[in-house]
Amino acid sequence: MKIAQIAPLAESVPPKLYGGTERIVSYLTEELVRQGHDVTLFASGDSLTAAELVPITPMALRLNGKVVDPIPYHMMLLEAVMRRADTFDALHFHIDILHMPMVRDCLERTVTTLHGRLDLPDLPAFYRTFPHHPLVSISDHQRLPMPPVNWARTIHHGLPADLLPPSWGPGEGYLAFLGRISPEKRPDRAIRIAARSGLPLRIAAKIDNVDRAYWEKEIAPLVERYPNVRFIGEINERQKAQFLGQARALVFPIDWPEPFGLVMIEAMACATPVIAFRCGSVPEIIEHGVSGFIVESEDEAVAAVARLDDLDRRRVRAAFDARFTAQRMASDYISLYRGLPGARMETPPLWRPRGEEAGLQIVA
Amino acid sequence: MKIAQIAPLAESVPPKLYGGTERIVSYLTEELVRQGHDVTLFASGDSLTAAELVPITPMALRLNGKVVDPIPYHMMLLEAVMRRADTFDALHFHIDILHMPMVRDCLERTVTTLHGRLDLPDLPAFYRTFPHHPLVSISDHQRLPMPPVNWARTIHHGLPADLLPPSWGPGEGYLAFLGRISPEKRPDRAIRIAARSGLPLRIAAKIDNVDRAYWEKEIAPLVERYPNVRFIGEINERQKAQFLGQARALVFPIDWPEPFGLVMIEAMACATPVIAFRCGSVPEIIEHGVSGFIVESEDEAVAAVARLDDLDRRRVRAAFDARFTAQRMASDYISLYRGLPGARMETPPLWRPRGEEAGLQIVA
Repeated sequence: MKIAQIAPLAESVPPKLYGGTERIVSYLTEELVRQGHDVTLFASGDSLTAAELVPITPMALRLNGKVVDPIPYHMMLLEAVMRRADTFDALHFHIDILHMPMVRDCLERTVTTLHGRLDLPDLPAFYRTFPHHPLVSISDHQRLPMPPVNWARTIHHGLPADLLPPSWGPGEGYLAFLGRISPEKRPDRAIRIAARSGLPLRIAAKIDNVDRAYWEKEIAPLVERYPNVRFIGEINERQKAQFLGQARALVFPIDWPEPFGLVMIEAMACATPVIAFRCGSVPEIIEHGVSGFIVESEDEAVAAVARLDDLDRRRVRAAFDARFTAQRMASDYISLYRGLPGARMETPPLWRPRGEEAGLQIVA
Repeated sequence: MKIAQIAPLAESVPPKLYGGTERIVSYLTEELVRQGHDVTLFASGDSLTAAELVPITPMALRLNGKVVDPIPYHMMLLEAVMRRADTFDALHFHIDILHMPMVRDCLERTVTTLHGRLDLPDLPAFYRTFPHHPLVSISDHQRLPMPPVNWARTIHHGLPADLLPPSWGPGEGYLAFLGRISPEKRPDRAIRIAARSGLPLRIAAKIDNVDRAYWEKEIAPLVERYPNVRFIGEINERQKAQFLGQARALVFPIDWPEPFGLVMIEAMACATPVIAFRCGSVPEIIEHGVSGFIVESEDEAVAAVARLDDLDRRRVRAAFDARFTAQRMASDYISLYRGLPGARMETPPLWRPRGEEAGLQIVA
């Protein structure tokens, strides 16, 4: 198929820094190319891809200190897409909402994956205006706050199978916390769970400016109080395999409706089980007793740590291989594209310059 | 003609608070209706108009404390416009940039008035992407920072002729400053000019939160130091006629490229001359020696105050009547709409439901 992937411009595809959406667009795009599809990626010009790249800006917006307002650049992105919209069998948008009034004429070949949280005050009225737009949720739970819309499917994210190799051994035996230091990620819970379990905890996390006060007032004092807790700062993609693979378990004590939670499947790829609080997508990702434990309190989490020996790291990785590879994700999307009412399977129709429609029209 | 006016949603049309764009959309819309045109106004639901109102939100976004992000509502606005785009002879957008990738199919019936400053870092790349979109500048000077685009015309703003009645008498003899307290409006200059001229100064201005520190550190001390200066806070539309009409002159000592500067023509409507610094649109609005004086320094401004008796208030109002009424503005826009390459003068074509084009197509 000839497929357009339309990425946000905040980060390159794949991202140089944090950027969950752009990472998934990259994994999906490269896997679609690998499966033989003709993919065009609309993204920032510093993106790296085996697909055809349509560069909208020279560099990702978040890295460009001169950028004040990201909206004009996303309008440029949409103009580039609309100029070529006729040439695609399917158009796949990853930019949330900006394109929706624009795709009326190609709606039957269009799908949008919603990457963010949907429980925001301005969204219900918006989505009620677009009840026919085919939407993909990244977990079933993500859908809960939404008014009736045209859900096409839930498609869970996936990672390239060889991105994070499994570690079969016992590793260094610590608990791992990976993500952002922020109140809804609850690093405080992770620290208390580790302290009560008597296991070391390593925290690999970035601290956004908005969370600086939370770090200094709430978390840094806890890190200092407990000698078994180590804060190692932000780690890059290459360090992840080591950090997660050497851990006894990933602790994922979230307190917000996480729409997906990539770090859970990253741990699973490393064969590392996950102790996760029942929240958001967690019950859809973790198989309780197989790839980890789902808990509802710190007491239950401490009990789960004590039962980690019940889990088999090979079965954790097998759970990843069965459900969370980029190959599975891409196959799901291809089957979705093929089922779109306007999806075209064959050669695109003869291109017609604007204004010549009448002369070429086949009359019914 | 059947005309769509598409307003921003920040304020109602007309605005209940500050909102220059929404005020102009209101003046234009009501005058077009008065001239017999069939106008549809897309705006917030608390707007008041003689046109057909398509309400997008129950109330203006700025008045609604629950609104976090204005973008989804503007996408709803665009969806409402696009659903009916085929029915209009001309579509007139006042929302800057959000619609531009969307109007490809009706570009020849579309015009956009740019209401804001254009010397912003993100705009040149954006406008280079839309070189064919017909644009209206609100002053010639506003165009300076722009790359080559499709300028249709400059159309200066206008006010209803009876909005602010002229005051022919000498009034109370003070100098007036009307607007926002902010560094680029230079109220400090106004205060020094009044002090050196020995005339009273009345400052009617709102203080935005962002300018609170500037007010407290720079301006409030000056107001206290000079006994001839009075700060009277924000005034409403009804108080303007009195405030401007009783003034000897409006002082407009700006230090930024003001794209238009409505307050200048408001003063002129009241028959009050304007002493303005040569900046932005000023030389296009003020006729030096007729409707006021254009100056380049505080010295020149003080000299201009001394020469105010040379000006005839009847000629100030005549300058307003000749160039700055809503009637003139609406006539300019009608002539522009009529000259658009795709403007339709007659009955709109038979409406065709989507998908039935082929059956109804007349083959060339």
